[in-house]
Amino acid sequence: MDEALFRTMLFDFYGELLTDKQKEYFDLHYNEDLSLTEIAESEGISRQGVWDIIRRAEESMRRYEARTGLVERFAREQQALSRLEDKLSRLLKLSGGERDALAEEIRRELRELRYGI
Amino acid sequence: MDEALFRTMLFDFYGELLTDKQKEYFDLHYNEDLSLTEIAESEGISRQGVWDIIRRAEESMRRYEARTGLVERFAREQQALSRLEDKLSRLLKLSGGERDALAEEIRRELRELRYGI
Repeated sequence: MDEALFRTMLFDFYGELLTDKQKEYFDLHYNEDLSLTEIAESEGISRQGVWDIIRRAEESMRRYEARTGLVERFAREQQALSRLEDKLSRLLKLSGGERDALAEEIRRELRELRYGI
Repeated sequence: MDEALFRTMLFDFYGELLTDKQKEYFDLHYNEDLSLTEIAESEGISRQGVWDIIRRAEESMRRYEARTGLVERFAREQQALSRLEDKLSRLLKLSGGERDALAEEIRRELRELRYGI
Protein backbone atom coordinates (compact mmCIF):
# COMPACT_ATOMS: atom_id res chain seq x y z
CA MET A 1 0.00 0.00 0.00
CA ASP A 2 1.04 3.56 -0.73
CA GLU A 3 2.75 5.07 2.33
CA ALA A 4 0.59 8.22 2.40
CA LEU A 5 -2.60 6.19 2.12
CA PHE A 6 -1.42 3.85 4.85
CA ARG A 7 -0.78 6.86 7.12
CA THR A 8 -4.24 8.23 6.33
CA MET A 9 -5.80 4.93 7.26
CA LEU A 10 -3.76 4.66 10.45
CA PHE A 11 -5.10 8.05 11.49
CA ASP A 12 -8.63 7.15 10.46
CA PHE A 13 -8.54 3.95 12.51
CA TYR A 14 -6.41 4.88 15.51
CA GLY A 15 -6.41 8.69 15.59
CA GLU A 16 -8.86 8.74 18.49
CA LEU A 17 -6.39 6.74 20.58
CA LEU A 18 -3.77 9.51 20.37
CA THR A 19 -3.35 12.35 22.84
CA ASP A 20 -5.06 15.61 21.87
CA LYS A 21 -1.75 17.24 20.87
CA GLN A 22 -0.61 14.23 18.84
CA LYS A 23 -3.93 14.14 17.03
CA GLU A 24 -3.94 17.87 16.37
CA TYR A 25 -0.37 18.16 15.01
CA PHE A 26 -0.63 14.98 12.98
CA ASP A 27 -3.85 16.22 11.41
CA LEU A 28 -2.48 19.70 10.70
CA HIS A 29 0.66 18.33 9.10
CA TYR A 30 -0.62 15.38 7.08
CA ASN A 31 -4.25 16.24 6.41
CA GLU A 32 -4.24 20.05 6.41
CA ASP A 33 -0.78 20.10 4.82
CA LEU A 34 0.75 22.65 7.19
CA SER A 35 4.54 22.59 7.40
CA LEU A 36 6.32 21.80 10.68
CA THR A 37 7.52 25.41 10.76
CA GLU A 38 3.99 26.77 10.39
CA ILE A 39 2.70 24.57 13.20
CA ALA A 40 5.71 25.45 15.38
CA GLU A 41 5.14 29.18 14.89
CA SER A 42 1.43 29.09 15.61
CA GLU A 43 1.98 26.90 18.69
CA GLY A 44 4.99 28.79 19.99
CA ILE A 45 7.18 25.69 20.22
CA SER A 46 10.23 24.48 18.29
CA ARG A 47 10.03 22.80 14.91
CA GLN A 48 11.76 19.80 16.47
CA GLY A 49 9.16 19.74 19.24
CA VAL A 50 6.37 19.55 16.68
CA TRP A 51 8.13 16.80 14.78
CA ASP A 52 8.73 14.75 17.95
CA ILE A 53 5.01 14.80 18.71
CA ILE A 54 4.03 13.82 15.18
CA ARG A 55 6.64 11.07 15.08
CA ARG A 56 5.41 9.67 18.37
CA ALA A 57 1.84 9.79 17.12
CA GLU A 58 2.78 7.74 14.09
CA GLU A 59 4.79 5.26 16.15
CA SER A 60 1.88 4.81 18.49
CA MET A 61 -0.55 4.10 15.64
CA ARG A 62 1.89 1.72 13.98
CA ARG A 63 2.14 -0.19 17.24
CA TYR A 64 -1.65 -0.54 17.39
CA GLU A 65 -1.63 -1.77 13.81
CA ALA A 66 1.22 -4.21 14.43
CA ARG A 67 -0.87 -5.81 17.19
CA THR A 68 -4.37 -5.73 15.74
CA GLY A 69 -3.76 -5.72 11.96
CA LEU A 70 -7.12 -3.98 11.46
CA VAL A 71 -5.98 -1.57 8.73
CA GLU A 72 -4.46 -4.49 6.84
CA ARG A 73 -7.65 -6.52 7.22
CA PHE A 74 -9.76 -3.60 6.04
CA ALA A 75 -7.45 -3.02 3.05
CA ARG A 76 -7.79 -6.66 1.99
CA GLU A 77 -11.57 -6.39 2.17
CA GLN A 78 -11.46 -3.26 0.10
CA GLN A 79 -9.48 -5.07 -2.57
CA ALA A 80 -12.04 -7.87 -2.57
CA LEU A 81 -14.86 -5.33 -2.97
CA SER A 82 -13.01 -3.76 -5.86
CA ARG A 83 -12.73 -7.12 -7.59
CA LEU A 84 -16.44 -7.75 -7.05
CA GLU A 85 -17.23 -4.39 -8.59
CA ASP A 86 -15.20 -5.35 -11.67
CA LYS A 87 -17.07 -8.63 -11.90
CA LEU A 88 -20.41 -6.83 -11.74
CA SER A 89 -19.28 -4.71 -14.66
CA ARG A 90 -18.41 -7.85 -16.62
CA LEU A 91 -21.71 -9.44 -15.65
CA LEU A 92 -23.61 -6.60 -17.28
CA LYS A 93 -22.06 -7.54 -20.61
CA LEU A 94 -22.81 -11.26 -20.40
CA SER A 95 -26.00 -13.20 -20.95
CA GLY A 96 -27.58 -16.59 -20.26
CA GLY A 97 -25.59 -19.29 -18.56
CA GLU A 98 -22.37 -17.31 -18.40
CA ARG A 99 -24.19 -14.52 -16.64
CA ASP A 100 -25.79 -16.87 -14.13
CA ALA A 101 -22.44 -18.50 -13.39
CA LEU A 102 -20.77 -15.15 -12.75
CA ALA A 103 -23.65 -13.97 -10.56
CA GLU A 104 -23.32 -17.13 -8.50
CA GLU A 105 -19.59 -16.56 -8.20
CA ILE A 106 -20.11 -13.00 -6.98
CA ARG A 107 -22.71 -14.12 -4.48
CA ARG A 108 -20.35 -16.76 -3.13
CA GLU A 109 -17.53 -14.25 -2.77
CA LEU A 110 -19.80 -11.80 -1.00
CA ARG A 111 -20.69 -14.55 1.44
CA GLU A 112 -17.02 -15.28 2.04
CA LEU A 113 -16.47 -11.62 2.92
CA ARG A 114 -19.04 -11.90 5.63
CA TYR A 115 -18.12 -12.65 9.20
CA GLY A 116 -18.93 -16.23 10.07
CA ILE A 117 -22.18 -15.37 11.82
CA MET B 1 -26.17 -6.40 18.08
CA ASP B 2 -26.34 -9.50 20.24
CA GLU B 3 -24.24 -9.02 23.38
CA ALA B 4 -22.31 -12.30 22.98
CA LEU B 5 -21.50 -11.52 19.36
CA PHE B 6 -20.41 -8.00 20.28
CA ARG B 7 -18.06 -9.44 22.91
CA THR B 8 -16.66 -11.90 20.36
CA MET B 9 -15.98 -9.06 17.95
CA LEU B 10 -14.41 -6.91 20.66
CA PHE B 11 -11.98 -9.74 21.38
CA ASP B 12 -11.35 -10.34 17.70
CA PHE B 13 -10.54 -6.67 17.12
CA TYR B 14 -8.83 -5.61 20.34
CA GLY B 15 -7.76 -8.88 22.00
CA GLU B 16 -4.14 -8.30 21.03
CA LEU B 17 -4.16 -5.02 22.96
CA LEU B 18 -4.87 -6.81 26.25
CA THR B 19 -2.28 -8.07 28.69
CA ASP B 20 -1.40 -11.76 28.35
CA LYS B 21 -3.41 -12.70 31.44
CA GLN B 22 -6.46 -10.68 30.37
CA LYS B 23 -6.34 -12.26 26.95
CA GLU B 24 -5.91 -15.78 28.32
CA TYR B 25 -8.70 -15.66 30.92
CA PHE B 26 -11.12 -13.87 28.61
CA ASP B 27 -10.50 -16.48 25.93
CA LEU B 28 -10.84 -19.43 28.33
CA HIS B 29 -14.08 -18.09 29.77
CA TYR B 30 -15.90 -16.76 26.71
CA ASN B 31 -14.44 -18.76 23.85
CA GLU B 32 -13.44 -22.04 25.51
CA ASP B 33 -16.45 -21.86 27.84
CA LEU B 34 -14.54 -22.62 31.04
CA SER B 35 -16.25 -21.47 34.24
CA LEU B 36 -14.63 -18.90 36.52
CA THR B 37 -14.18 -21.66 39.10
CA GLU B 38 -12.41 -23.92 36.63
CA ILE B 39 -10.02 -21.16 35.60
CA ALA B 40 -9.45 -20.17 39.25
CA GLU B 41 -8.60 -23.74 40.22
CA SER B 42 -6.21 -24.34 37.35
CA GLU B 43 -4.50 -20.98 37.95
CA GLY B 44 -4.41 -21.26 41.72
CA ILE B 45 -6.10 -17.89 42.28
CA SER B 46 -9.52 -16.90 43.61
CA ARG B 47 -12.67 -16.95 41.52
CA GLN B 48 -13.02 -13.22 42.21
CA GLY B 49 -9.46 -12.67 41.01
CA VAL B 50 -10.26 -14.36 37.70
CA TRP B 51 -13.43 -12.34 37.30
CA ASP B 52 -11.64 -9.04 38.03
CA ILE B 53 -9.16 -9.73 35.24
CA ILE B 54 -11.87 -10.70 32.75
CA ARG B 55 -13.96 -7.68 33.69
CA ARG B 56 -11.00 -5.35 33.23
CA ALA B 57 -10.25 -6.95 29.87
CA GLU B 58 -13.77 -6.24 28.71
CA GLU B 59 -13.71 -2.68 30.03
CA SER B 60 -10.45 -2.05 28.24
CA MET B 61 -11.81 -3.33 24.92
CA ARG B 62 -15.02 -1.34 25.34
CA ARG B 63 -12.94 1.79 25.84
CA TYR B 64 -11.06 1.13 22.60
CA GLU B 65 -14.35 0.64 20.83
CA ALA B 66 -15.89 3.77 22.37
CA ARG B 67 -13.01 5.79 20.90
CA THR B 68 -12.46 4.17 17.52
CA GLY B 69 -15.90 2.69 16.69
CA LEU B 70 -14.20 0.08 14.49
CA VAL B 71 -16.38 -2.88 15.51
CA GLU B 72 -19.48 -0.79 14.85
CA ARG B 73 -18.13 0.28 11.45
CA PHE B 74 -17.30 -3.30 10.55
CA ALA B 75 -20.76 -4.48 11.65
CA ARG B 76 -22.44 -1.91 9.42
CA GLU B 77 -20.35 -3.05 6.47
CA GLN B 78 -21.28 -6.62 7.19
CA GLN B 79 -24.96 -5.70 7.09
CA ALA B 80 -24.44 -3.97 3.76
CA LEU B 81 -22.70 -7.07 2.39
CA SER B 82 -25.58 -9.20 3.58
CA ARG B 83 -28.06 -6.99 1.73
CA LEU B 84 -25.93 -7.19 -1.42
CA GLU B 85 -25.92 -10.95 -1.17
CA ASP B 86 -29.73 -10.95 -1.00
CA LYS B 87 -29.86 -8.72 -4.05
CA LEU B 88 -27.60 -11.08 -5.98
CA SER B 89 -30.00 -13.89 -5.15
CA ARG B 90 -32.89 -11.82 -6.50
CA LEU B 91 -30.87 -10.91 -9.58
CA LEU B 92 -30.52 -14.57 -10.49
CA LYS B 93 -34.29 -14.81 -10.80
CA LEU B 94 -34.72 -11.73 -12.97
CA SER B 95 -34.10 -11.17 -16.66
CA GLY B 96 -33.61 -8.39 -19.20
CA GLY B 97 -33.94 -4.77 -18.12
CA GLU B 98 -34.89 -5.54 -14.54
CA ARG B 99 -31.80 -7.67 -14.20
CA ASP B 100 -29.55 -4.96 -15.65
CA ALA B 101 -31.03 -2.35 -13.34
CA LEU B 102 -30.45 -4.49 -10.28
CA ALA B 103 -26.90 -5.32 -11.36
CA GLU B 104 -26.21 -1.59 -11.73
CA GLU B 105 -27.66 -0.96 -8.29
CA ILE B 106 -25.45 -3.64 -6.73
CA ARG B 107 -22.38 -2.26 -8.47
CA ARG B 108 -23.15 1.23 -7.18
CA GLU B 109 -23.58 -0.04 -3.63
CA LEU B 110 -20.34 -1.97 -3.81
CA ARG B 111 -18.62 1.22 -4.86
CA GLU B 112 -20.13 3.09 -1.92
CA LEU B 113 -18.72 0.48 0.42
CA ARG B 114 -15.28 1.21 -0.86
CA TYR B 115 -12.98 3.62 0.84
CA GLY B 116 -12.78 6.91 -1.05
CA ILE B 117 -9.50 6.13 -2.76
